[in-house]
Amino acid sequence: MRAARLHEYTHDMSNGLAIDEIDRPTVENSSDVVVEIDGAGWCQTDNHIIEGQWADYVPQPLPMTLGHENAGTVVEVGEEVNLVSEGDQVICHPVQTCGICRACRQGETMYCENDSFNGLTTDGGFADEMLTSERSVIPLPEGVDPADIAPHADAGITAYHAAKKAVDELNPGDTAVVIGVGGLGHIGLQCLDAMCAADIVALDIKESARELATECGADVTLDPSSVDVAEEIDALTDGHGAEQVLDFVGADETTALGPDIAAQGGEHHVIGYGGHVHEPSQAFVAGEFTFRGTLVGQYSELQELVALVDRGEVELHTSRYDLTEINTVAERLENREIDGRAVITP
Amino acid sequence: MRAARLHEYTHDMSNGLAIDEIDRPTVENSSDVVVEIDGAGWCQTDNHIIEGQWADYVPQPLPMTLGHENAGTVVEVGEEVNLVSEGDQVICHPVQTCGICRACRQGETMYCENDSFNGLTTDGGFADEMLTSERSVIPLPEGVDPADIAPHADAGITAYHAAKKAVDELNPGDTAVVIGVGGLGHIGLQCLDAMCAADIVALDIKESARELATECGADVTLDPSSVDVAEEIDALTDGHGAEQVLDFVGADETTALGPDIAAQGGEHHVIGYGGHVHEPSQAFVAGEFTFRGTLVGQYSELQELVALVDRGEVELHTSRYDLTEINTVAERLENREIDGRAVITP
Amino acid sequence: MRAARLHEYTHDMSNGLAIDEIDRPTVENSSDVVVEIDGAGWCQTDNHIIEGQWADYVPQPLPMTLGHENAGTVVEVGEEVNLVSEGDQVICHPVQTCGICRACRQGETMYCENDSFNGLTTDGGFADEMLTSERSVIPLPEGVDPADIAPHADAGITAYHAAKKAVDELNPGDTAVVIGVGGLGHIGLQCLDAMCAADIVALDIKESARELATECGADVTLDPSSVDVAEEIDALTDGHGAEQVLDFVGADETTALGPDIAAQGGEHHVIGYGGHVHEPSQAFVAGEFTFRGTLVGQYSELQELVALVDRGEVELHTSRYDLTEINTVAERLENREIDGRAVITP
Amino acid sequence: MRAARLHEYTHDMSNGLAIDEIDRPTVENSSDVVVEIDGAGWCQTDNHIIEGQWADYVPQPLPMTLGHENAGTVVEVGEEVNLVSEGDQVICHPVQTCGICRACRQGETMYCENDSFNGLTTDGGFADEMLTSERSVIPLPEGVDPADIAPHADAGITAYHAAKKAVDELNPGDTAVVIGVGGLGHIGLQCLDAMCAADIVALDIKESARELATECGADVTLDPSSVDVAEEIDALTDGHGAEQVLDFVGADETTALGPDIAAQGGEHHVIGYGGHVHEPSQAFVAGEFTFRGTLVGQYSELQELVALVDRGEVELHTSRYDLTEINTVAERLENREIDGRAVITP
Repeated sequence: MRAARLHEYTHDMSNGLAIDEIDRPTVENSSDVVVEIDGAGWCQTDNHIIEGQWADYVPQPLPMTLGHENAGTVVEVGEEVNLVSEGDQVICHPVQTCGICRACRQGETMYCENDSFNGLTTDGGFADEMLTSERSVIPLPEGVDPADIAPHADAGITAYHAAKKAVDELNPGDTAVVIGVGGLGHIGLQCLDAMCAADIVALDIKESARELATECGADVTLDPSSVDVAEEIDALTDGHGAEQVLDFVGADETTALGPDIAAQGGEHHVIGYGGHVHEPSQAFVAGEFTFRGTLVGQYSELQELVALVDRGEVELHTSRYDLTEINTVAERLENREIDGRAVITP
Repeated sequence: MRAARLHEYTHDMSNGLAIDEIDRPTVENSSDVVVEIDGAGWCQTDNHIIEGQWADYVPQPLPMTLGHENAGTVVEVGEEVNLVSEGDQVICHPVQTCGICRACRQGETMYCENDSFNGLTTDGGFADEMLTSERSVIPLPEGVDPADIAPHADAGITAYHAAKKAVDELNPGDTAVVIGVGGLGHIGLQCLDAMCAADIVALDIKESARELATECGADVTLDPSSVDVAEEIDALTDGHGAEQVLDFVGADETTALGPDIAAQGGEHHVIGYGGHVHEPSQAFVAGEFTFRGTLVGQYSELQELVALVDRGEVELHTSRYDLTEINTVAERLENREIDGRAVITP
Repeated sequence: MRAARLHEYTHDMSNGLAIDEIDRPTVENSSDVVVEIDGAGWCQTDNHIIEGQWADYVPQPLPMTLGHENAGTVVEVGEEVNLVSEGDQVICHPVQTCGICRACRQGETMYCENDSFNGLTTDGGFADEMLTSERSVIPLPEGVDPADIAPHADAGITAYHAAKKAVDELNPGDTAVVIGVGGLGHIGLQCLDAMCAADIVALDIKESARELATECGADVTLDPSSVDVAEEIDALTDGHGAEQVLDFVGADETTALGPDIAAQGGEHHVIGYGGHVHEPSQAFVAGEFTFRGTLVGQYSELQELVALVDRGEVELHTSRYDLTEINTVAERLENREIDGRAVITP
Repeated sequence: MRAARLHEYTHDMSNGLAIDEIDRPTVENSSDVVVEIDGAGWCQTDNHIIEGQWADYVPQPLPMTLGHENAGTVVEVGEEVNLVSEGDQVICHPVQTCGICRACRQGETMYCENDSFNGLTTDGGFADEMLTSERSVIPLPEGVDPADIAPHADAGITAYHAAKKAVDELNPGDTAVVIGVGGLGHIGLQCLDAMCAADIVALDIKESARELATECGADVTLDPSSVDVAEEIDALTDGHGAEQVLDFVGADETTALGPDIAAQGGEHHVIGYGGHVHEPSQAFVAGEFTFRGTLVGQYSELQELVALVDRGEVELHTSRYDLTEINTVAERLENREIDGRAVITP
């Protein structure tokens, strides 16, 4: 079968992945599941992986098939699999978990001590078929097209996970700030809108992104390149500040906003990860301020996101590309030329 | 009366405060309370205030009497005060709150929109008497000496507040790391020990501090100047990491420990505030890691700490000084020559 | 001024209250506020009070002016009141709190140890003017008519409080059941709809109430007089049950539904209080089931509800009556002849 | 092998179970584990099962081997089991879970949709060997004797689970009431003592149980047969009431205590289940009162309890009996003649 694989780290996106012909995966363990990929979302993280930015954080055996936002059709199952059978359409949580370690027992599947991560530490879905397990697939509701929902497997679940943590702390009358209305941000906005009654302020330097923000439920949009964001938030909140900040960019200039725009006791969620956090300890103390990282989301949260999609609360704008166009997609994302989410359809 | 006042910011601790003769405070509002000070703790923050380190964060009308860890005897009350009367012994929460703003309504008294803070934004307790209000005093249990308990008004409540947040996330079998076993740290340790059954690892470069840590309930102590802390924590936790880190130092080298020693989803509480936090955004994402600031603690938490003291769960080691020795205390603390907590007894 | 007062407990609603001529209230304490009543909602609890059903639970000095859902215009303030001044329009939380006891400090204003409750333990708002305090009034946003919002002071805040507790436990894909779509239930439904993305099933024996439920956000409505509710919930949830049940009736037959329709670990909120809870202890154990009472809501929650109203998320249907019609209202409510909420406009 | 089996429900405890000779269990699925039983605790629930009290709640295929508190030595494992191997000593969580359903994903293993429960819905441990699975066993720390720890598999985990829920709501200065200091209660007391700093009041009609309570950490003990409990709690808490009540009895007279002794917003945990809860709805509303059921505890909580035991925080008093004495144990428990926990050692 065909698979788009990374052979060595490179900054040249035009030639990052090679389309190789390799063997199809087969079931080895009793809970294995093989999925024929109908759609696999391309993520900013794929560019980071190609550049080697994750090599210090996780083991990456090269060559490796990328692609961690996958959905498709089950073609083979291990002998003890009960949840799905051949022909079922599924979305694939990118993490395969053991179900045995303490983290799995607690439902914290992202902290599994024996995990593998499609397209990050093991082969992913930019290929005709992919090996995963019963603990990583979620059957799709009637009428949902796998290629439409695929990006929710990572972009969606990451945005949902951060939004859910924020919603826990947001009351009616409170203010949430969303920084960056791109692939993740526009999902995060819709999740916030569906799950709380706070006022939502969205920041983006692109006018089209701000328009999308309004469609997705933002009450106010701001262009940080033309206004003083801290002054505006101060005015909008009567000097109180924003209880929750969701930073889908994570650049030096966006993390620097946190202590200036957050209310006392406020939280700044670091979801995107381009740059650094750099603040004096005293800034944490004086405002009882928090920087809180977000790493994808649990399996059960992907179930919840699928339920949101099924209710019509979250819509994704996607554009589809053939597997052979994969490096073009990487280049265009690098140049910010992709609108919505690119989905590879092998 | 006598009052030790700051007239201008200085780095010369030998001459930071002047003993002035000023008018005694008097009751003006119906809920005012005047307290004769029996003990007022000297805090590292007092040195920071003298140096002007808080001038950017809060309004400070100079000259101002310092001292935010106060306890004493009520000498005058406003006409609508019911909680205490003349002669009652009290500990004084350093923040005077309005009781009317939304933060006060929620019990988040540290976020009061109309607050004043003894010794930080208004006159404090390094004086014969101090003005506070009914909403800031807590009657002492029988047999508790105000001069013994005074440092709990800030050092104690700050350590307790951080410990309480950590305890909420700590299960038996988890690991908590306490960095810095000084004035705050040794209280934090005792609070953790009283309120959870996690394993506690304490770090301090001073041997006497590590011995104190063991007395206060630490299961393991480490000297960060002689061992690789990350390796030790890794070994102690079977590679899992510490669920909670309480950083009572807040220096560059202590905040840098966080991402290396924390478990997935772990939290590093920034309580001390000497230095900076400096990490790539990706470090927050990869470990779903959090830096969480701590600002003193709520009035109701000071009630809880007084209950802990009354149960014999938390002991303070203090040394007493006369008001006239105040600059000597400042200098000796700067040189790390104070053991336990210095209490001024006007 | 005129005041509708209860002189003795009676089951004769046609003659429950007398319109007396009494002195206007005046400011006595520094935080007192006198409000001219523009609207005062009539509540099922008023009927219960007239019957003496609360005499065993709280002290009630008779004669007493009833009315605990009040809004109006400030006419006089104590000398230390800052939040409002003469002429401001306000909604009045029914409970006057001390701000000093531990419960108040924690934000749990409903548990104030020194409270008084308008129309339940002290004079209420079925009168030209009412005495309350700075800690019990919330300024209204521009353009909100006090007579329109008055019932939120009790019916609204009670429904909101229960909904907020339920929302904390509801994820997308979960099911909430609302029992009784009357004065409180139709507010509770709107609050659930605004603050979570669970599926909502509403039960009511009246067809008009079920239609209102659909308008208020119910996904499914059921008539318990014609279907087997437990079977229906079972089918709707694939045998899983409802995570949260909000019982705005509290009769024997509605509380009996709880263990049958709740999911494992589910909660049944007792908000209405006509009847009894009667279950074997084993029913609590077998399903890890909970019955959870709800008592009005905190001051800060009334702020949140006012924010929801201001956002257009919650609408109240009210009908207005003159103070002289007060016993007619009591009788008609007893006979279930009132649609929406009756508001007395003195 | 020998197995003590229930053939039909009976109230005659002297003859409840028969010692049958049956086939040893064998591994069938890849995650199966067979354990040779070193100790199996006898529980009040075993008496309830023999009487048929669980027949309405769960499916029970008779004849069935009873025994749900098991520990022993692994003798055979399925081919994909990694957590344990032959010869390992383990404690067995009584519930076998699928790891696949949504409840398992959330860590709520007690709500597993495909579970089986040793000694309740499938064969248990009053036998030489028992079949369980990798998801239900926890390796024991060095030096822990399986026969000593066995009762923690149900009595312990149930008491711990309830205590953990209570501890989440208990602050220093609060009061917890423990009703019934028997097999579960004395563990619950030790868990409370290890994990919070609240004041603990223990109730029991037996003097020896009250003495045990004091050893286990109770601050005050009361004999409900000789004092008015509500008056005593009122006096001990300055009229405030107990924030948390843990009812290890669940009889009519103990559940009736709840609304009388609980503070506003208090919770009464129903853990034992002899009798009924019977209260007017208004009692839930007036005190914002809650009755909360407890069903065993999650797998991850049994890990936490094992950690507590390993730390020396919880001690069990047990007496050992041979498998042939099993009906004698049942009879003696019925007559309240067993001190501590009876452990069958096949």
